[in-house]
Amino acid sequence: MRNIKLVIEYEGTNYCGWQIQPNGPTVQQVLQEAIARMTGHPVHLIGAGRTDAGVHALGQVANFHTSCRIPLEGFWRGLNGLLPKDIVVHSVEEVPLDFHAQFGAKGKTYRYQILNRPSPSAIHRNHCWHIPHPLDRAAMEEATRALIGRKDFSSFQGADPEPTGSVREIFQAEWSTEDPPFLSFTISGSGFLKHMVRNVVGTLVEVGRGKSSPEDFIRIIAAKDRRAAGMTAPPQGLFLVKVDYE
Amino acid sequence: MRNIKLVIEYEGTNYCGWQIQPNGPTVQQVLQEAIARMTGHPVHLIGAGRTDAGVHALGQVANFHTSCRIPLEGFWRGLNGLLPKDIVVHSVEEVPLDFHAQFGAKGKTYRYQILNRPSPSAIHRNHCWHIPHPLDRAAMEEATRALIGRKDFSSFQGADPEPTGSVREIFQAEWSTEDPPFLSFTISGSGFLKHMVRNVVGTLVEVGRGKSSPEDFIRIIAAKDRRAAGMTAPPQGLFLVKVDYE
Repeated sequence: MRNIKLVIEYEGTNYCGWQIQPNGPTVQQVLQEAIARMTGHPVHLIGAGRTDAGVHALGQVANFHTSCRIPLEGFWRGLNGLLPKDIVVHSVEEVPLDFHAQFGAKGKTYRYQILNRPSPSAIHRNHCWHIPHPLDRAAMEEATRALIGRKDFSSFQGADPEPTGSVREIFQAEWSTEDPPFLSFTISGSGFLKHMVRNVVGTLVEVGRGKSSPEDFIRIIAAKDRRAAGMTAPPQGLFLVKVDYE
Repeated sequence: MRNIKLVIEYEGTNYCGWQIQPNGPTVQQVLQEAIARMTGHPVHLIGAGRTDAGVHALGQVANFHTSCRIPLEGFWRGLNGLLPKDIVVHSVEEVPLDFHAQFGAKGKTYRYQILNRPSPSAIHRNHCWHIPHPLDRAAMEEATRALIGRKDFSSFQGADPEPTGSVREIFQAEWSTEDPPFLSFTISGSGFLKHMVRNVVGTLVEVGRGKSSPEDFIRIIAAKDRRAAGMTAPPQGLFLVKVDYE
């Protein structure tokens, strides 16, 4: 038996997210079917984390077990030949049998791209949140600093409480304009609650628009109540950049 | 009568190029129809230059004449509301009656994006040419310098000779990796022959792959013969960045 680790890029626009579900095509399902055509047997693909419909990944990680003996480079080429062009496998690696893409993840990095100018973008329309209003970047950066550290992020969680609790550690969070035309938010942490990055960005944008202050943002975290926070940023600006393991 | 100048961004993927033609939808046609719905009368839209099927624009320029009195900001908002999301009007400006987007253009800038790594990109698949082979960037840069100046570029023209001859002036041409993950080629000139940028890039990539040398590239220009040059780079890597006027 072999355990195979994949690093995967995908454009989420045409998928109902990562995880298999009955309403439409998902990235996990399309990958599992392509892998099964290579291995000759059904596989269960374990992803590092779920992504919502419309969310993208530059470096999603997944693993599966197989008895097939296809060499790794042939597997990589064959898989990319079978997959639709909006899913690309960057690497195929054999890892120890106990490697688990979800439980073994020690950290994740996400990027959220905002397009802050009067007109939307034709080229980047599926890869950013277009905000035509002015944003106070200094206020957003001040609020962002309050995210760093090990905290209870209940205020930014999705509708349902998580079985693993709501405490996570944020290692780094910052805004940058180094990748024009975007204002990009990069955040790294031990893990993220469902919808957490989108809820954080939506709430920080309200700070940027002057609807709340950096002090309000600190109070929102302390409230540990989803109702205290702002809107959920739309999915198409979000990218899972990478997943780190020991 | 008013003369209206538009600056337009579009994703060329779903269009048969800029110019109206019978085989399928074009950017000019979609824009003309949206403008006519605003003005209440048919218009003829003059573009700064044609772009091929699959080629994109960040700053295409076009103008049209109209008797309608819609204020410019309302026109801009209304037009973007009517247009599909892969065509965006960035600005609407009233210009002197003799302004002509094609004949008045004094210079154009194009960018060509290459993705030079083993795997293709899911996210950027419609915005670059994926080249998995190593490229000798120093050789490509040496060859590129031979483009600068006022020259006969017959070797890089499309199949048919142009009515305006084949002499053009190239102001600037350079390669950059400042916009990751791309290796980008930016070229500015007084004007460009049909397919010229794609033919130049295709020929420079052959230099990069070691199939020809920078000296060969100089001889290719001097030959003034399309058969001397290399392949035509695919359309999806090309962007019309901007058009300059006096």
